This record gives sequence, C-alpha cells and structure tokens, in this order.
Amino acid sequence: MKLGMIGLGKMGFNLALNLLRLGHEVVVSDIHPEKGAELARHGALSASSIEDLVNKLERPRIIWLMVPAGVVESVTETLAGLLEAEDIIIEGGNSHYQQSIARAEKLQKLGIHFLDTGTSGGTEGAEHGACLMIGGNREVFTSVEPLFRDLAVDQGYLYAGESGSGHFLKMIHNGIEYGMMQSIAEGFELLEKSSFDFNYEDVARLWSNGSVIRGWLMELTQSAFSKDPKLAGIRGVMQSSGEGKWTVQTALDLQASTPVIALSLLMRYRSLEEDTFHGKVVAALRNEFGGHAVVKED
Amino acid sequence: MKLGMIGLGKMGFNLALNLLRLGHEVVVSDIHPEKGAELARHGALSASSIEDLVNKLERPRIIWLMVPAGVVESVTETLAGLLEAEDIIIEGGNSHYQQSIARAEKLQKLGIHFLDTGTSGGTEGAEHGACLMIGGNREVFTSVEPLFRDLAVDQGYLYAGESGSGHFLKMIHNGIEYGMMQSIAEGFELLEKSSFDFNYEDVARLWSNGSVIRGWLMELTQSAFSKDPKLAGIRGVMQSSGEGKWTVQTALDLQASTPVIALSLLMRYRSLEEDTFHGKVVAALRNEFGGHAVVKED
Amino acid sequence: MKLGMIGLGKMGFNLALNLLRLGHEVVVSDIHPEKGAELARHGALSASSIEDLVNKLERPRIIWLMVPAGVVESVTETLAGLLEAEDIIIEGGNSHYQQSIARAEKLQKLGIHFLDTGTSGGTEGAEHGACLMIGGNREVFTSVEPLFRDLAVDQGYLYAGESGSGHFLKMIHNGIEYGMMQSIAEGFELLEKSSFDFNYEDVARLWSNGSVIRGWLMELTQSAFSKDPKLAGIRGVMQSSGEGKWTVQTALDLQASTPVIALSLLMRYRSLEEDTFHGKVVAALRNEFGGHAVVKED
Amino acid sequence: MKLGMIGLGKMGFNLALNLLRLGHEVVVSDIHPEKGAELARHGALSASSIEDLVNKLERPRIIWLMVPAGVVESVTETLAGLLEAEDIIIEGGNSHYQQSIARAEKLQKLGIHFLDTGTSGGTEGAEHGACLMIGGNREVFTSVEPLFRDLAVDQGYLYAGESGSGHFLKMIHNGIEYGMMQSIAEGFELLEKSSFDFNYEDVARLWSNGSVIRGWLMELTQSAFSKDPKLAGIRGVMQSSGEGKWTVQTALDLQASTPVIALSLLMRYRSLEEDTFHGKVVAALRNEFGGHAVVKED
Repeated sequence: MKLGMIGLGKMGFNLALNLLRLGHEVVVSDIHPEKGAELARHGALSASSIEDLVNKLERPRIIWLMVPAGVVESVTETLAGLLEAEDIIIEGGNSHYQQSIARAEKLQKLGIHFLDTGTSGGTEGAEHGACLMIGGNREVFTSVEPLFRDLAVDQGYLYAGESGSGHFLKMIHNGIEYGMMQSIAEGFELLEKSSFDFNYEDVARLWSNGSVIRGWLMELTQSAFSKDPKLAGIRGVMQSSGEGKWTVQTALDLQASTPVIALSLLMRYRSLEEDTFHGKVVAALRNEFGGHAVVKED
Repeated sequence: MKLGMIGLGKMGFNLALNLLRLGHEVVVSDIHPEKGAELARHGALSASSIEDLVNKLERPRIIWLMVPAGVVESVTETLAGLLEAEDIIIEGGNSHYQQSIARAEKLQKLGIHFLDTGTSGGTEGAEHGACLMIGGNREVFTSVEPLFRDLAVDQGYLYAGESGSGHFLKMIHNGIEYGMMQSIAEGFELLEKSSFDFNYEDVARLWSNGSVIRGWLMELTQSAFSKDPKLAGIRGVMQSSGEGKWTVQTALDLQASTPVIALSLLMRYRSLEEDTFHGKVVAALRNEFGGHAVVKED
Repeated sequence: MKLGMIGLGKMGFNLALNLLRLGHEVVVSDIHPEKGAELARHGALSASSIEDLVNKLERPRIIWLMVPAGVVESVTETLAGLLEAEDIIIEGGNSHYQQSIARAEKLQKLGIHFLDTGTSGGTEGAEHGACLMIGGNREVFTSVEPLFRDLAVDQGYLYAGESGSGHFLKMIHNGIEYGMMQSIAEGFELLEKSSFDFNYEDVARLWSNGSVIRGWLMELTQSAFSKDPKLAGIRGVMQSSGEGKWTVQTALDLQASTPVIALSLLMRYRSLEEDTFHGKVVAALRNEFGGHAVVKED
Repeated sequence: MKLGMIGLGKMGFNLALNLLRLGHEVVVSDIHPEKGAELARHGALSASSIEDLVNKLERPRIIWLMVPAGVVESVTETLAGLLEAEDIIIEGGNSHYQQSIARAEKLQKLGIHFLDTGTSGGTEGAEHGACLMIGGNREVFTSVEPLFRDLAVDQGYLYAGESGSGHFLKMIHNGIEYGMMQSIAEGFELLEKSSFDFNYEDVARLWSNGSVIRGWLMELTQSAFSKDPKLAGIRGVMQSSGEGKWTVQTALDLQASTPVIALSLLMRYRSLEEDTFHGKVVAALRNEFGGHAVVKED
C-alpha cells in the first residue's frame, strides 16, 4: 500500500523502514529533513513538508502519525486543513484516549477517518514486529489492515473497538508494564539486600527460561545486567512519560482499586527526590513526642 | 543416573516421568502406592516405603524430595536415619530458605549432602522442562548436574550459591510473580470497568504477541479467558501458599521498601473477606462526624 | 454583622443558628422553605428566594454559600447576576480549589469578592465552633473576619492566602483525614482478628486519654463503639464524597508520593465491591500454572 | 504504695518522679548511678544494684521495669532468681507481646506475677500523665491499680485482658501512630509542593483547633514547625524502633489487609536510602525497551 509517515523518531523511522522492506510505498516527513533523506536511501519518497506529503499521496490518503505526544494536536489540525473526505489518519503515538475520541469526532465532521493506534514492543518491535491496538471504525480498519498485519508480529494486532479503544488499551498496557517492572525491580532489590552473593545476569537469564515469570521484561533485565552487573553506573531515578499517570487517573474515575499500579507510579515520583518533606515531618514528630534523634542537614 | 523420587504429586510425578523418558533409573515412593504403580508402568522401580527406596539405591544415593511443605521436615528426619555419608538429598519443594539452611547444616554433620532446589514452571514445566534454582555445595551440585540439565529447559537451571540460596531465589521469584499477576489483573479490571467492550481473550492474545508485557503469565491469561470469557464461573478469592508472605517478611527483615509485592499479598488477604472490620470503622466514623449514611447489615 | 446564608442543610443550618445566637442578623434561604421557617423562629429573616435574600441585604452584601457541591456553580451564577460591586460571597462548601480560583476570577471582573472557605469540624463544629480555612483577598477577609472569629473555635480560623488556598487546605485536610481514619480502622481490624478479647469502646476511650494517637477521631471511634460494640449493625462500605479523590489527583499532578492517602482512597473503592475482577484474574492464573483450586461462583 | 523502678531513662525517670510527687515510696536503680542519686534528692531510695533494690522492698514486692527492649530479658532473668512467690513485675517497655506471654508463663511457674504494660504519651506523658495498657492476671492488676491510676491521665489506663494483651494493644497503638504520622506528613508534603505559600505552623495550629483531624499529633506538628518553619535543619530520615514492623508482621500472620500501616513502614525504610536498587532496575529496563535516557552516576 501507499502511505505517508509523519514523524521519523526512533519509532516512526523504524516503522517506515519496516514498511519499505515489505514493499510498501512510503512518503515520509519529519522536522529534521535528514531523517527523510536517510529513509530516501531505503526507497522512501521524502516530503519537504506536511503539505508536500499530503500532495504526494493519492485519495483516499493514508497517513501514519508517529510524532511526540505534545505535537499530535497541532499536526492533526494541520492535516485537518489539508485532507479530504475518506482520507485516513492512523495516530500511532501515546495520546490520551479521551483526546483521541475528541479528535476522531472532530475529523469525522470533515469526513476524515481516524484510527487511534497504540503501539507496543519498543524500538525493537518497531523494526522487527510490533504489537498494535487499533480503535475506530471497523471498515476503515479493514481497509488498511494489510499495513497492521505487516508491521505486527503474528497475532500482534487487534481491532479493539470504537474510537479511543486502541489508545485505552495501550494506556492500560503501560499501567501493567509499570507494575510488572516494579515487581521485577523489587525482587532484585531483595536479592541485593540479602546476604547471598547472586550474579544478577545469571538469575535473570535463569528466570527467562522456564520460570513462571519469564517474558520479555525478564529478558531485558538480563540484557541490562549483562552490560553493568550491578547497575553501578546509573542512578535509580525512575522517569515516567504519562501513561502510568493516566492509568491511575482512570482508575480513580472508574473507582477501581488498583494499588499495585498506583504504587508503581508513586515510587517513581519518590525516586525523583533525594529527600522528602513528608520524611522531615515524620522525623520531627518522632523527636517531638519521644525525643528520638533526628538526622541533621549538613 | 539413578535416583529416588519421594513424593509423586503433580510436580513429583511429572518430574519422575520426565526423567524416565530421558533414560534415568528412578526409584519412586509415595504415600499413595498407586502413584508408584502407575510410574512403574513407565519404567520406574516402585518402592513400598522410604526405607525400601533407600535400600533400592546404591551409594552415594541421590534422593529427590518433592513432598508438601508440611512434611519435608519429617521425611528429612526419616532420611537422616537411613542415609549414609556422601548421600545426596535434593529438596525440590517450597521450603523457607532459612529452614533449608538449618537442614543442610544438620545433615552435614552426618556427612549427608543437601541441595535446596527451587522449582518453577508449574506442572507443565515439570513435564516439559522446568526452571531450577539450586543452593548448596558446588561440587555436590556438579556431581548431579546432569539431572538438572535434563529436567530444565535450555539455560533453565542455575547453581545459585551456598545453602539456602536456591530456595531464597524461588521465594523471590514467587514474590515477583505475585506482583506481576496483580499488575495484569488490575489492568483487566480497568478494562472491565471501562465503557469499552473488549474481548479479553483477544486482548491477552494480542499482548502475548510483540508487546512489552508479553510472557508466560500473559499467555496463561489468554488461556484462562479462552475457557471463560468473563471469568463468570469463579470468584475472585485469591489464595496464597506462603512464599509471598515469606517474601514480605524478608523485606521487613532487610528493611527493603517493596510496596508492590506487599500490596499484592495484602490484596490477596483482602479477597478472603466479603466485608471488613476496618470498613465498618471508617463507615461508622464518617457517620459520627458528618452524619453520612451507613449501609446497614441485613 | 448582617449576612445572608444560602443552603440550610446540616452544616448551613447550624452555622446560621450559631450566628443568630451570637447576635448577627441572618437572612436565610433554602430550597426547602420549612428550613428557613424553622430558623425564623430563632430570629432569622427568611427569604423566599435568592433574589429576595439579596434584596433583604444592604451593600456591601455578605452572602455565605453552604450548598451541595453540585449546585455551587448554578447558585454562584445566579448571584453573579444579582450582586453588585464590593459584595462578598463566602463559599463554604467542598468545592475543588481550581474551580474556586476560576469563580473568584470571574466574579472579580464584576467587582464581586469571593472567599473560598473550607469548613471542618463536622455538624458538631458547625454548631459549637468550627475550623475555617479562608482564601482570597486579604482586605476582604479582614472586613468579614468577625464572622469567622465567631463561628470558629479559638484559633480555629486562618487566612490561608490567595484565592483557592482555603479550599486547597480543606482538600488536603480531608486527604489526611482519609489516612488517619484508615490507620485507626486497620488497628481495630487487627484487634478484631487477634485471639484477644478486647472491648473496643474501652480501648478507644483509653487511647483518647493520654496516648500519642489521641484526638477527635479517636473520641468518635469510642462514640461509635459505645452505640454498637462490634459494629455488627453496619456494613464496611466506605463511601467517599470527592475530596480524597481530588487529593490523590493533586498528588499525581504534583508528582508527590503519597501512598497512604492513595491507599486509603483505593481501599474505599475496594469496599464498594463484594468481589473483584482482578481477584478472578489472579485466581484463574493460579489455576492455570499450578492447578490450584478456584472458588466457584454459586 | 512502695515499689521499685528499674531503668531511669527518659521514661522511667519521669515515671518515678511522678510517683514520688504523688506520695509513693520508690526504690530506684539504673546502670548509671547518678540517675538514682538525682531521684534520691526528690525522695527516692537509691539502690546500688538490682539485688539491693529487691532487698529494699517488702513482700509482696512490686517492681516496675522501664529498661531498653534489648535488656528486658536479662533483667527479667536476674529478677527471677531474686524474687519470691507473689512478687509482681510490671514490665512497662516496648516488648513484643509474644515474648511477654512467654515471660509471664515462665515466671508464673515460680509464683511470680507479670503484668505486661504498654505505655504511651511520650516523655511528657511519663511526667504529667500517661496512657497505660495492662495485660495479665486481673487480681494482680487490681492489687496495684492505684499505681496505674496515679500515673495515668483520667481514664488513661485499662486492664486489657490476659497476658500479652497490654503489649499487643501498645503494638497496635504504634501501628496506628505510624499511619497517622505518615498521613499528616503526606498532607504537608502536598502543601509544600503546591504553588501556594502556606505558613505550616499556622496551618498546624489551625488544624489543631476545631478540625476533624485535631489531636496531639497535630499539636506536635505545630510545635515542630514553630521551631523550624520549613524543617530545613533536618533530613527526612524516618527511623523506626520495631513496633511498626511487629504490627505488619502480625497483620501478615492474621491475614489482615492493612495497607496503610504497611506502607507507612515501607516508606520509613525507603527514607533510609538515598538511592535504590529497584530504581536502578526500572531505569535500566526503560532504557532497554524504549531507549529512554538514564541518569548516570557521577
């Protein structure tokens, strides 16, 4: 099929490369033109702008957005002014599902179709086979299904349902991911604090083979320890990019008791600070009622 | 190799069967003699008692224990009175690692070797390839390594270190498992409470293919939903068999902050009750200070 | 002073009564006119409508809103159309602080002043002395300070700062309250599950006298147990009215790790369900990998 | 009454002083003899050793132990060799209730009585009126009740039940205290992270007067902020002395879901570390699958 790919970061670049290999025609565009030039060497048609990209496609156009969450809105608005009825936007980024629902409704008034598409599998998946969760109109989905089939690993794509369901699934996927990562991490913390002398790469390799907790995250754990046996070179600062927070906010709205996902997020926040104000208050209170010693600031 | 297998429950039976298929000589014993008889049809030598089993082996004897946690102590005591120096006990159950350390020390005084061996992979793993974590003397481990190599999947066994380290690793493995299961479960609870209409088997299959959270637990989730699409036939009572509790107790002793594993366990306890006393207290307090309505008992 | 009181529920009625006793002139209004009639017997001037109430006050008018959170917006809008420059609205309900900031800004354009006023102390406090947290313009606060001084217990009111700070403080107060109530409740659950045979009213009275954890909530705990020694008559369903959720949402926005307040809220949500979907998933998974028995639905 | 007081630290010294003021005869002993000498100036009879203290009392002797948890066992053993039938030991420290049960049983065989006595109220309570929770034989309790009545605030002592119940109540009291302190502390952390500019001493004073969350801990919060408005001089290191851990261990044994008390403890453990191993693992995993940047160690 022929399609446009807007956004050639780690994910978009690899998805485009993958599509080219599989024989699709891909018109590409990025704010960094050298990305498009590089893909042109792999057979892509490089567009100089979004308008140029739109012009290089035939109706009904198919455009895959893989841009940072912060610019999805502006790019979508630009596209809304350029596209025509029956054109299709596949939004592959990590947008909030409620925004995707709103975008789909807005575009639908112009006759433009919108498929919210959660993408998992990391940069490796983008290149070698991803996991895709697609929401929107089923007929529209079917019309571009060959793209999803080619980009995903076997059984790795799903028409999830109405608009928003694709990004909702991706959000929940990430919430689960937060919990699973924290679970694994707590386990290794216990190994580290124990009096035994484990080789963590060996343990992660072992648990990747035949155990109940085997899976890709454990394989990645092995990979990480293979590069730095005690992770001595990095700090335990756990950044987050939004989906975990959205998951917990959604849990609050749905009155769902999800303590493990919530705590996984809160421990990330905790890791951003070397010291806490709540700790100071508790330490001060212990001193007040029991005369317990406090640790003074230097 | 030739060895004895004591305990022919789901795990022990399958391990013995697996060993027989691979050409080992296995003397078997269980309190239910029909289990031994069944394995005899697959080539095992069935012993009428532990003493008989010991007598049917040559020195240095190798005996694999796969009995319920509650009887490990008594069976080990019995064996201590029958075995001789250089004999080897492989304890494959879910014993507390501190008990394993104590047992190893006690047996060592008699010259009997003891390998604490955590076993993961479920009943399927016992039959088709398990994950084994072994603690104890390295030379003793090496002398029986062919057994571990044959029973485990490729790269699925590890000499973990000194006595206790095998069962310690298994305990932590199970702690991680608690957290990962609760993470997955919370994710599906959010799907269930959402206004979307997901097919959970499809979602679990999708996430088993190409996603970051793919792994055996997700595949089992798919399997469970394939049998009962909404799990309508079962109650959400989450039993536990001890290792999760041990993990949290160990975290307390090591002063390790492991909120996700701890909450996974506490939610299991919560699930054992239809109503809680703490809930009554909070409800009563809200009524006291704000006049908020309470839900009356029928 | 002379003021209007709109909303004569449990809180507004008692505040008005208290003001009347202290010699203030109070014009009252409620959608249930009998409330106004009852207060008229205590000296209030009962208004037949909001418009009537506004007309019965002299400029600069002082109007205290004590209406349910759901109607604050509409009543405020009505007042915006009736009041004049320099009039003052004291909003004493549990509104979200960001809404209060927005309302203050909107009214300021009309020259109308707005003091967001968090009220604590329960219905008892409304009658005998409350705790008041006030945000908005300091001069406006000062102009009506006598009202706050009269309604509050000694040292029980505070000019908290700019618009929104009053309701922010009240929100955080309630978040702390959630955590403290859950703490007390968990303690009594442990007493209940222990093998000892405690008299909970005696324990709560004891802890109300001289202990580190003494305070009003412990006194209310005693009061609750004095009426029902084991709380046998009520179910442990823990409703919530919003401020706890807002606190956790705020914590997420501020990237603050507040596990105890978060869990207090999540346990309330958990209490609304007799069974959980996450519990079903975990139970099903245990069955899948280990053959562990599940509890069947009836 | 006449009694011996062993252990003249912050708590024991003040209790003895308080008893002397109220007209009791107190024989005192401490490993630091100057403590006894100081109390002698207030009318105490200072003993040179435990044996001397025992000899200075008449049968049936009453001896109050107020020694550090680590030496209760040895002092009790010493007393067991010196005391006679019908003598009474009041153990006022923070011992684990199961140890108190064991001690009571052991001493009972010698005819010596043992009252496990939890003491709350801090050093201030020891001097001006404490909260006492007493377990053991009811007749023995009654025989020394005047001491408890004099040392406690009004209604501030309770015969809790059989042996161990006093220290059990104290343990749970401290578990609740952990949760309440963490609740308050999280609230102030949210104030600190907000964009408002609160005066924390003012807020704590406000909440100490008329609010739902008023109580001694809030008063102590005010006191702490009065000395250091932002607690800039201390670090948020939250030490713990055992009872919180015991409470959580007890919750695990009783299969009680007590997330708030558990998390209060785990956050204390977290505060002992500037960085965590679990944080490193999560950061490394994010880098592995998504190429997310990590924070390097210096």
